Amino acid sequence: MVGSEVLPRQIKAEEIAEIVSGKVIGDPEVTVTGISGIKEATKGDVTFLANQKYIQLLESTQASVIITSPDMNIPQGIGKTFILTDNPSLAFARLVEYWFPQEVDHPKGVHPTAIIGKDVVLGKNVAIGAYVIIEKGVEIGDNTIIYAGTYIGHDTRIGSDCLIYPNVSIRERISIGNRVIIHSGTVIGSDGFGFATVKGVHHRIPQIGTVVIEDDVEIGANVTIDRARFDKTIIGRGTKIDNLVQIAHNVVIGENSIIVAQAGISGSTIIGKGVILAGQAGVVGHISIGDGSIVGAQSGVTKSVPPGTVVLGSPARPISITKRIIASIPSLPDMKKTVERLIRRVQELEEKLSSEGKKRGK
Amino acid sequence: MVGSEVLPRQIKAEEIAEIVSGKVIGDPEVTVTGISGIKEATKGDVTFLANQKYIQLLESTQASVIITSPDMNIPQGIGKTFILTDNPSLAFARLVEYWFPQEVDHPKGVHPTAIIGKDVVLGKNVAIGAYVIIEKGVEIGDNTIIYAGTYIGHDTRIGSDCLIYPNVSIRERISIGNRVIIHSGTVIGSDGFGFATVKGVHHRIPQIGTVVIEDDVEIGANVTIDRARFDKTIIGRGTKIDNLVQIAHNVVIGENSIIVAQAGISGSTIIGKGVILAGQAGVVGHISIGDGSIVGAQSGVTKSVPPGTVVLGSPARPISITKRIIASIPSLPDMKKTVERLIRRVQELEEKLSSEGKKRGK
Amino acid sequence: MVGSEVLPRQIKAEEIAEIVSGKVIGDPEVTVTGISGIKEATKGDVTFLANQKYIQLLESTQASVIITSPDMNIPQGIGKTFILTDNPSLAFARLVEYWFPQEVDHPKGVHPTAIIGKDVVLGKNVAIGAYVIIEKGVEIGDNTIIYAGTYIGHDTRIGSDCLIYPNVSIRERISIGNRVIIHSGTVIGSDGFGFATVKGVHHRIPQIGTVVIEDDVEIGANVTIDRARFDKTIIGRGTKIDNLVQIAHNVVIGENSIIVAQAGISGSTIIGKGVILAGQAGVVGHISIGDGSIVGAQSGVTKSVPPGTVVLGSPARPISITKRIIASIPSLPDMKKTVERLIRRVQELEEKLSSEGKKRGK
Repeated sequence: MVGSEVLPRQIKAEEIAEIVSGKVIGDPEVTVTGISGIKEATKGDVTFLANQKYIQLLESTQASVIITSPDMNIPQGIGKTFILTDNPSLAFARLVEYWFPQEVDHPKGVHPTAIIGKDVVLGKNVAIGAYVIIEKGVEIGDNTIIYAGTYIGHDTRIGSDCLIYPNVSIRERISIGNRVIIHSGTVIGSDGFGFATVKGVHHRIPQIGTVVIEDDVEIGANVTIDRARFDKTIIGRGTKIDNLVQIAHNVVIGENSIIVAQAGISGSTIIGKGVILAGQAGVVGHISIGDGSIVGAQSGVTKSVPPGTVVLGSPARPISITKRIIASIPSLPDMKKTVERLIRRVQELEEKLSSEGKKRGK
Repeated sequence: MVGSEVLPRQIKAEEIAEIVSGKVIGDPEVTVTGISGIKEATKGDVTFLANQKYIQLLESTQASVIITSPDMNIPQGIGKTFILTDNPSLAFARLVEYWFPQEVDHPKGVHPTAIIGKDVVLGKNVAIGAYVIIEKGVEIGDNTIIYAGTYIGHDTRIGSDCLIYPNVSIRERISIGNRVIIHSGTVIGSDGFGFATVKGVHHRIPQIGTVVIEDDVEIGANVTIDRARFDKTIIGRGTKIDNLVQIAHNVVIGENSIIVAQAGISGSTIIGKGVILAGQAGVVGHISIGDGSIVGAQSGVTKSVPPGTVVLGSPARPISITKRIIASIPSLPDMKKTVERLIRRVQELEEKLSSEGKKRGK
Repeated sequence: MVGSEVLPRQIKAEEIAEIVSGKVIGDPEVTVTGISGIKEATKGDVTFLANQKYIQLLESTQASVIITSPDMNIPQGIGKTFILTDNPSLAFARLVEYWFPQEVDHPKGVHPTAIIGKDVVLGKNVAIGAYVIIEKGVEIGDNTIIYAGTYIGHDTRIGSDCLIYPNVSIRERISIGNRVIIHSGTVIGSDGFGFATVKGVHHRIPQIGTVVIEDDVEIGANVTIDRARFDKTIIGRGTKIDNLVQIAHNVVIGENSIIVAQAGISGSTIIGKGVILAGQAGVVGHISIGDGSIVGAQSGVTKSVPPGTVVLGSPARPISITKRIIASIPSLPDMKKTVERLIRRVQELEEKLSSEGKKRGK
């Protein structure tokens, strides 16, 4: 696939508008034969623009039809057709799904090489891939797909309509909701990192808790989510986790949060609802990040963050403060010299004034 | 498991004191039926407190029995029973092990689907899971458990009483001691990252060394430990490594060190005994970190660190210096303005003095 | 293997010089029996030194023969033999390969437990390990080796002479060139992290693109490379990627770049040719890093970087600026006090001058 994805058949702008519940501005009869990103698009493609920041691409794109929002200033007389809809990203996602509904040929049925333990309960229409191991007592809901080479520990419960990719490791007694997606290489329920140190030697503290992944969570590739010491590590409903993220024992994440790649959350920290942790951010243990807060990339959060706060930096501070610091820091080396010069000038003034005082005092 | 783990039977405070070799303060006859963290505990639970920092939880906790240390100021007349012992964390770990000794049902025997190569020597009472691959010449000690889907390369030697979780990859000629625990997804003995660049093209330098993991090491999930170019990458006895840590070729880590999640150690660096590398810390190659040193979270260590030093920041500096910098940095933007105002004031003074000098000079 | 690797037979300095196309300085008849790093070497070993920075090791090493470059100032009369060659690292790599040409016993043929889907085309002399799963429509070139437990999704194409280690997950429709090496635990083609958020709920944007890995790429352990939303995530020819690196959807990396461990590249960013991203560096999305640029360790790149630029810091700035900042920052706390003292001194001067003015005015 170079540049654009070829559609199964050509389609008119007015048909697209119907699929995405949008309004056509321009020629409703224009047809498209491909789908593409706005920069890569060529004539005959449909594309979309959601972000005001890239508005100049509306003019420069070669696409024939562009899905965008009514808020955008649409350029006139450039021979392109626009479809206006409230959420162009979502509209585009729907369009893609409409055209490529069964793009991937997921495994069907239970592969003869899958090893299914005692007392396992499989829902209707599940698909279990080759060399999958399902230990005793596991329950799996309807329509759930488990790819090849994945391991499911004993007494774990997985809901319905889940999609678990190859080579995932899910340990014992984990609870996973419905419509959860887990990408390859991810480990759920590894032991929390807890030791009692006596005379310099570290003794394990048993980690007998579990992990609860609620409905509609998506977890990226090579993520690690540790089980709680007691109790539960919880990933709230609708939260999306990117690749290579670390979630320590007893962390609780609220609903619909976003944890970007390579971020790490230390033990027992509580992340609210609708929080965004940007890439490579780190959060210390035993604190809380309030609902709707945003933690900037590479930030290091060392104290609890109130709801609705945007923090940045290591250590993380409110973004307005960090931005002022970042803006002023390059002048620091010159400022050092300036201050040294000032000291000399003030000293000279003091000496002058003192000698004049003496003169007059004579 | 919500809130607390139910015990197999109820137990008296005096029995707990006996198990952990502690002393009862309060009612030795009080019984508990559950075990929990101090915040989540409810009436009838036993919990513990090890950290002076959270001493106020001794009053607010709902637990009936609290294991803590003789150093703590125990609040009087609050109707709770305390058990005093030198290391409350370790005592609690023992208590948990006492109650949940066989919590996990590890695999037994050699699964018929495990593939065992030529000249493999298996100790007594080993457990090898389904779809495990053990290449030729491997030796595995007594009582070692290897979970499903794990790969062990040729001529690797694994000691006794080890526990290796699913989907681990251990390459050829690796040496692993006794009582080592390795969590899922971890890769040991991948090739070091070494290239000779000629006219912009990178040629591999063969990595023919190996990795030695000494006794009592624990390695988290999705960790990567590269083999040495020659010689050995070494993880010292009793060292504990958290998830998603990177250890490059020829790194040597001493005994009983702690490497927290997402930390990275570059090639040929030597980490001493009893060192702590906090989360997301990075260490450049070819330096050493002295015994007992601590590297703060997200620090970037660019020079060798003497023994017993606490460093923080990127670049890492002694913690007292970094803390002073962190404390003064928010005043930088204002200081810039202050200095600008000072320059103007000094200039005015200089002009005044100069003009007065001239007047008087007349 | 402690200290040095024993050679299959002893060898003379002049033979080594022939193998590496170098020139002997010293005794061409001296024989070596082992190979080692320069610090660990003992008498009878051959070693190498490529970096001017460690030139003092030429004197202190115990090695009998040292491969180095004609640029080095070779110490006289120390009873050692030198072999001069333009690229000592590469020469040494060749020497190692000469002596240990078949160090690893790779799998041979197609293991009977490998599952090969419909319409799979296998090249000549391929090796497919135990429990490998190859889905339908896959093509694999001549001499390619795929280790145990690896998963290859449908319609993926892998070139010839590739080496894929155990427990790798390669998703559907991926394209991999010739002579590509992929280490264990790595995931290629996981879904990009893209959501359309409507009233706080995140809806997946289908990721229907793919990943292209060009010839001669090497990818470390537990790396994640996401597939493009449309179009292709591309890793250019000869680029080398270390462990635990994150490469987001639609990233394009040019030829012969180096991405060091735990670095992360956000979506749609373009990395040029011959770029170096040092360890734990992060790059935001939708920017470009010009050819030949270097991004320092732990840097956070927030804006496009022109070709041939070295940047450092978070946020990343040209290295000369960041180095000046790093050098001056420790004086910040004292500078704060100095400025406060200056304010008082200037105020005193102003008062003095004002009172004298008044006196004289009388």
